[in-house]
Amino acid sequence: MVKSNATFDVLKFDIGRSNDAPSFISMRISAPTEHILGQVLEELVALGCRLAEQHDALLRQADRDGCVPDDFYSTTNHRTHVRHRGQWIEVDRQRMDAVIVVEQGRAICRKLRDVNTGDAVICGVGGVRVSPQFRDRDRLGFAFMTNEISSERRVEVGVSRIATLMREVKADGGRIAFVAGPVVVHTGGSAYFQELIRAGYVDVLLAGNALAVHDVEQALFGTSLGVDLDTGKAIEGGHRHHMRAINTICKAGGLKAAVEQGVLTSGVMYECIRQGVEYVLAGSIRDDGPLPDTIMELCEAQDRYAAELENVRLVLSLSTMLHGIGVGNMLPSWVKMVSVDINPAVVTKLADRGSSQTLGIVTDVGLFLHRLAHRLRA
Amino acid sequence: MVKSNATFDVLKFDIGRSNDAPSFISMRISAPTEHILGQVLEELVALGCRLAEQHDALLRQADRDGCVPDDFYSTTNHRTHVRHRGQWIEVDRQRMDAVIVVEQGRAICRKLRDVNTGDAVICGVGGVRVSPQFRDRDRLGFAFMTNEISSERRVEVGVSRIATLMREVKADGGRIAFVAGPVVVHTGGSAYFQELIRAGYVDVLLAGNALAVHDVEQALFGTSLGVDLDTGKAIEGGHRHHMRAINTICKAGGLKAAVEQGVLTSGVMYECIRQGVEYVLAGSIRDDGPLPDTIMELCEAQDRYAAELENVRLVLSLSTMLHGIGVGNMLPSWVKMVSVDINPAVVTKLADRGSSQTLGIVTDVGLFLHRLAHRLRA
Amino acid sequence: MVKSNATFDVLKFDIGRSNDAPSFISMRISAPTEHILGQVLEELVALGCRLAEQHDALLRQADRDGCVPDDFYSTTNHRTHVRHRGQWIEVDRQRMDAVIVVEQGRAICRKLRDVNTGDAVICGVGGVRVSPQFRDRDRLGFAFMTNEISSERRVEVGVSRIATLMREVKADGGRIAFVAGPVVVHTGGSAYFQELIRAGYVDVLLAGNALAVHDVEQALFGTSLGVDLDTGKAIEGGHRHHMRAINTICKAGGLKAAVEQGVLTSGVMYECIRQGVEYVLAGSIRDDGPLPDTIMELCEAQDRYAAELENVRLVLSLSTMLHGIGVGNMLPSWVKMVSVDINPAVVTKLADRGSSQTLGIVTDVGLFLHRLAHRLRA
Amino acid sequence: MVKSNATFDVLKFDIGRSNDAPSFISMRISAPTEHILGQVLEELVALGCRLAEQHDALLRQADRDGCVPDDFYSTTNHRTHVRHRGQWIEVDRQRMDAVIVVEQGRAICRKLRDVNTGDAVICGVGGVRVSPQFRDRDRLGFAFMTNEISSERRVEVGVSRIATLMREVKADGGRIAFVAGPVVVHTGGSAYFQELIRAGYVDVLLAGNALAVHDVEQALFGTSLGVDLDTGKAIEGGHRHHMRAINTICKAGGLKAAVEQGVLTSGVMYECIRQGVEYVLAGSIRDDGPLPDTIMELCEAQDRYAAELENVRLVLSLSTMLHGIGVGNMLPSWVKMVSVDINPAVVTKLADRGSSQTLGIVTDVGLFLHRLAHRLRA
Repeated sequence: MVKSNATFDVLKFDIGRSNDAPSFISMRISAPTEHILGQVLEELVALGCRLAEQHDALLRQADRDGCVPDDFYSTTNHRTHVRHRGQWIEVDRQRMDAVIVVEQGRAICRKLRDVNTGDAVICGVGGVRVSPQFRDRDRLGFAFMTNEISSERRVEVGVSRIATLMREVKADGGRIAFVAGPVVVHTGGSAYFQELIRAGYVDVLLAGNALAVHDVEQALFGTSLGVDLDTGKAIEGGHRHHMRAINTICKAGGLKAAVEQGVLTSGVMYECIRQGVEYVLAGSIRDDGPLPDTIMELCEAQDRYAAELENVRLVLSLSTMLHGIGVGNMLPSWVKMVSVDINPAVVTKLADRGSSQTLGIVTDVGLFLHRLAHRLRA
Repeated sequence: MVKSNATFDVLKFDIGRSNDAPSFISMRISAPTEHILGQVLEELVALGCRLAEQHDALLRQADRDGCVPDDFYSTTNHRTHVRHRGQWIEVDRQRMDAVIVVEQGRAICRKLRDVNTGDAVICGVGGVRVSPQFRDRDRLGFAFMTNEISSERRVEVGVSRIATLMREVKADGGRIAFVAGPVVVHTGGSAYFQELIRAGYVDVLLAGNALAVHDVEQALFGTSLGVDLDTGKAIEGGHRHHMRAINTICKAGGLKAAVEQGVLTSGVMYECIRQGVEYVLAGSIRDDGPLPDTIMELCEAQDRYAAELENVRLVLSLSTMLHGIGVGNMLPSWVKMVSVDINPAVVTKLADRGSSQTLGIVTDVGLFLHRLAHRLRA
Repeated sequence: MVKSNATFDVLKFDIGRSNDAPSFISMRISAPTEHILGQVLEELVALGCRLAEQHDALLRQADRDGCVPDDFYSTTNHRTHVRHRGQWIEVDRQRMDAVIVVEQGRAICRKLRDVNTGDAVICGVGGVRVSPQFRDRDRLGFAFMTNEISSERRVEVGVSRIATLMREVKADGGRIAFVAGPVVVHTGGSAYFQELIRAGYVDVLLAGNALAVHDVEQALFGTSLGVDLDTGKAIEGGHRHHMRAINTICKAGGLKAAVEQGVLTSGVMYECIRQGVEYVLAGSIRDDGPLPDTIMELCEAQDRYAAELENVRLVLSLSTMLHGIGVGNMLPSWVKMVSVDINPAVVTKLADRGSSQTLGIVTDVGLFLHRLAHRLRA
Repeated sequence: MVKSNATFDVLKFDIGRSNDAPSFISMRISAPTEHILGQVLEELVALGCRLAEQHDALLRQADRDGCVPDDFYSTTNHRTHVRHRGQWIEVDRQRMDAVIVVEQGRAICRKLRDVNTGDAVICGVGGVRVSPQFRDRDRLGFAFMTNEISSERRVEVGVSRIATLMREVKADGGRIAFVAGPVVVHTGGSAYFQELIRAGYVDVLLAGNALAVHDVEQALFGTSLGVDLDTGKAIEGGHRHHMRAINTICKAGGLKAAVEQGVLTSGVMYECIRQGVEYVLAGSIRDDGPLPDTIMELCEAQDRYAAELENVRLVLSLSTMLHGIGVGNMLPSWVKMVSVDINPAVVTKLADRGSSQTLGIVTDVGLFLHRLAHRLRA
């Protein structure tokens, strides 16, 4: 209703005294146009409301086989009654996505293709009453939700909203944290992520050892990775590059030293260091090396993460369930979190752990970063 | 509350006149024991309620580093205020799974491991006020839902409930439909499914051509499958068995004829035919053959499916998104549907399409059928 | 061929001198029965071999519409030639799962259902020549592989092999390590895992903080979990149990102390302690608590894991990608690793990281443990 | 080796006479530079080769803790021997991603971080012998494979190759078929797909009823979809748009008539009709409607698909397992197929069913189409 600019006044409301007792509400609905009023009424009828003034349902004749009048009533799968000749009669063969035909005093669901010329088809919502199952109650709330980015599925719409959000946060002087897994490097998202860093959209980077190692390997050896953690395929000889990257940074004495010595001259970590972006690399049981910069004492790593998250207004978590959940645990619910992953289970898990403030985007993180950088350039 | 045998009386309820206006409710909560009352109050406080009688929050001293009194208040990630010396003060560093320490007039979230001996820790729920974000409203409903099987994750609990449901439906003289994909055969569930058929728990089988072809191939050639559709691995030579199975049934003139001629002497289709269980096999674009029994005209197949679903009281859909969604489209919302699949996306999709009546179980369908047959034997 | 007890003698072998140059091999195939010989020849023809003695392909007439003789040649999707009247002619409309009909000097793929009575259908493999695409070369190797458990998909077959392997390792005095994620608890596998511990099949348990916390929560509060990490659904009030479990163990001074004090009297950790099974809990960025037993310094945790893995002969990794990959990194390739997860991506990733010694089983870990415990009881 | 421009001559090759008997090969390797020769030798050693001239392994001292010389030998997890003082000694504590230190006559794997100043570290590949497990044989082949697009994971690299392939096919006068699921519409790929149609890159569209219905709904009502099949979330009121779209096309008498009557003026189907692109819509058990254009008799639909696939040189399958497998079944192996899906299981299944000619790309299909249209514009 909020979406449609319709408004409501509660005339009467009796809440059920227990879970079993029914509740009743009377509302007056107002809308700017008749068309919008019609849409709102259709939604409310599907949720179990019925019009206060009771008329018979409107019947119109189908004028061709397999077709119905434009304002036909399209069924849900819930138990439905229609008012016909002053009587409420239950609809037979209830199913979703059907029309209701009244014949010989009976109302029946019929598939569009089975409608015959001359069939009396229920149109509009007057004289229709839907009785959702009791336990649907909890789902009904979703009917009035403003759409979440996660349900868009048009990633470009999501990208555009996130870009706007990022600009707003920065315009307000707020801080943005990125949590990133090595998939950012594997999927070719690195160059676009570096662009975001240079453009000042990354205030802090929270990651693990692997992101930095793969990033350095790409910077030093031009290989995308030694072992592809996503496809699981080992590129022959790749593990050597992986270990040589680690050895090179160890020799330099760490990432910052490697940048200062001119050993590391490109990549995500290089850009962070050059731009003065703080980063915290937390260790894990599967780390190689680790790099001298990686914090292997995890209480310390958690404290460092938490300290960097203070005053952060927006968090983008890119393809890392481990660090994403870690960060989600540390955030108050009013800090917005966006979780991007190609695996819907990761997005779901993060969204539900971090509860309502997490927006999930199921997509390819490399292409996502490409679109986000493009959008922020404009 | 229903779960805890607690009851409530609504004392006052003012519904907000618009989506932005707040609503207020006053309730009197009664519970059989103080312990249950405590639990219910804790839940209500987490949802944003606060006690009518206002006292300061209870403070107890931690008597050891890293430990707190047993009745400590465990935080959510929502904005929280505590009442201290008659004032409501906002809690600092809000995060989930922390305790609240009051020191120097400030309240602060602290991780358990950072608690020091002597810290004043908030205990109980009195004097604590939680302000969930507005849009969490829709989620709150879930707090009072009775648990769905889908959220159990202990498949054995789900199996036990489904077995009870099946027994009840049969005891009432109701009909049970099974919708089954070829994975039932691939995962070794076939023998257990046959057991269910023999025991009378299957009134109608709705499937596609592939289930019958793989079942016949197993019956005739003892190979589990020509091409493993799940792992995608082709077993060398397997496609020959697959096509020979089809040729054999075509020569016999169909499945029933093959059973009568003694050509087909075991398997799911054999048991259906022997037990007089109706089956409908619907064609698809990827079918080989098809078997003479498969209905390749899909309007007819839909009508046959729908006809068989009349008066069905329970539907079990086993590892087939295509046929499961097809069946879900045809059912009224008061026919219970159980969807079993190893892929959570399938379960989610079916559950949400078929709306509230679908119970999703994410598990291995072969082992699921093993457990279900075992449970129904007892 | 090994499977069929067929043997081969290499008569001649010319290896291509470069990737572009073809290689040639002549082999003499022997088999115990003509039937087995036929099967082996069919496989070899599908791989691109042809019989040394060249005859025309055998043609038989279809005696009914939609059916073919029993020994019909079933096509692959590779380019195929057949010898007809002394000439090799290319088969038209090549596709898989078809039969080849010769008419008017042309050979053509035909779907079974399009075969007419009287069509001349190619039977057997004589006079058939298949030319796989060059790059299929690498796949051909799989034709002769003994089946991996991972491709079985009948989990019960896999369970039976693993049980045998476990018995053999124990009979030899070898050690078995388990790597376990919290899903073991969530899916109800805990009781069966405890049974394995009591039966002496678990020599060391390598896990994270979460397994122990969820296990303790179940032991102390009887709730299966505070927050369901798998479904992502928060059970209202559950997070309190979670934190109380941690607080209780912290107060006792650790898991062993909690067992000694009679505070912890059941569960996986309890059974480990009672049976003297070594355990190592490695920390991670998303841990709550942690328990006093959890090693938060990850270099130390890696060293402890590696030390416990010495002389281990078999590793079972249950639903934990993080710790499973960590352990895989530490193992030599001759230590067998079994990875069980409901998500095929985890199994693939572990199998490919740990390379050839990892057997992957895609199934519900709770039911898997049920079947494994049952099998080992027998 | 092909990649590196290295060449080989086979000096001697003894093939094992059975699966158990070992095979031996002697090769002379030539490479344009010493660096490339070194890389090739490293790969061959990891595969189990060893240098013909036998020298002791080269030892260099670590000059700092936690670092090793640049040309250090990085271990695999296979059994390894090193030649020291004329003797082959087995390496102790074998694991991957370690270095080998020789001390007191023993060779031992050591993690980089555990290397101490002065440790004697094996460098280069001389005097190192690796013994892969026998069953790795099948995997070795992959070492010499040219990279598949599927393993790239940088979707942009894949997009670029596909664009080149499409241009080549069109330049040769070849035909390109697209197989498309409704996710193309849901993910916002529709506009880019329309661009490909207008640019002449789509010669035939093979799809189901749902693609056309969702496309028409978007064209007529501006809603992206009635029910989001991917997220499973029903947009309130959406099912009405869905059914109204069907009713509108039924009234017009089909898609082409709707375009001619000016009822349908945009979308994928509109562009196909305007550009004279053939389309075949195959029915399924879950279809609503269907549209008059949808072929509900599946034998006819298969025949129409197969007829349109004749002379097609390239197939792109976008997010549809059902129709993609259907098409894969109909193609000869020399027609290249590209399968794009966000779910890796779909890509794997299609790739393995259609065998070697299928290239799998795991990504968001909406963003994929965006990048592909962009690339083809350039």
